[in-house]
Amino acid sequence: MAISMYAASVPVFQHMLRNLAHILEKGEANAQARKFDPSVLAGFRLAPDMLPFTRQVLIACDAAKLCAARISGVEAPKFDDTETTFDELKVRIRKTLAYLETVPASALDGTEDKEITFPVGRENKRTMTAQAYLTTWALPNFFFHVTTAYAILRHNGVDLGKTDYLVGGQR
Amino acid sequence: MAISMYAASVPVFQHMLRNLAHILEKGEANAQARKFDPSVLAGFRLAPDMLPFTRQVLIACDAAKLCAARISGVEAPKFDDTETTFDELKVRIRKTLAYLETVPASALDGTEDKEITFPVGRENKRTMTAQAYLTTWALPNFFFHVTTAYAILRHNGVDLGKTDYLVGGQR
Repeated sequence: MAISMYAASVPVFQHMLRNLAHILEKGEANAQARKFDPSVLAGFRLAPDMLPFTRQVLIACDAAKLCAARISGVEAPKFDDTETTFDELKVRIRKTLAYLETVPASALDGTEDKEITFPVGRENKRTMTAQAYLTTWALPNFFFHVTTAYAILRHNGVDLGKTDYLVGGQR
Repeated sequence: MAISMYAASVPVFQHMLRNLAHILEKGEANAQARKFDPSVLAGFRLAPDMLPFTRQVLIACDAAKLCAARISGVEAPKFDDTETTFDELKVRIRKTLAYLETVPASALDGTEDKEITFPVGRENKRTMTAQAYLTTWALPNFFFHVTTAYAILRHNGVDLGKTDYLVGGQR
């Protein structure tokens, strides 16, 4: 008995992407309540040379999508990264969740030792086993961008707590 | 074949705690190079009602320690959370890594369905299977605090990149 590759990946991504959608909704509602343009939040960066909120959300979505696609081999839709509004970001999360729904457990289970080659930055590549790629690269990277999106809103006074991050998307 | 409970937890915590120690070193070196007191970074918060850098590091350490202890039953040392300096935080990370070294794979493997009851906030408790607790609670919480510690330094101009977060602790 152990954790299947599917259980360690797709349901975790789905759970956290739903939490991210919930966090987005709280950010948008906060901008409306405080009567400022939500695009200020959408474009906010924690440092001038860090990516803005929108990109944190897009990369979180792609980290989930590409991890599932690379390991399973189930082709993923290509998105153009043109989202700038909260509504568009919510659609992107929904499209990512819709893709993850199409990845069957059977395409991931048993892939622990499969070699995965993936881009690192613009010019480099790395190769790892699927298990190492998932646990030490894809999941840390995914959580990094979900947490940074949360931190940007939290830094700007959106009323978020750890519960929103951990279980906010559970209905 | 699948991922063992040990492989999905302890080596991931160890890998990321080493990266966190590396991030701390860059933060401390940056304060020295820019000639300001590192305690300013150590006490910095991204929002007035968020926890400061020191607490993000302590909670990341405890998230790893308590997850391993709760699932394995291997008793964990109790720490007093008195750390305020970068040096003390580095010691705390080392003590957490030393504890994780004492947790044998055999104490974690096969625990997927074991019921884990853990505190949520000051008054509540939740119970989940060890697998659900690890993948949807302990790991997300651990990555949250490592990333928030990174974000606090990055927000303050420390020269960090994603590589530091993902593999900075690899020697």
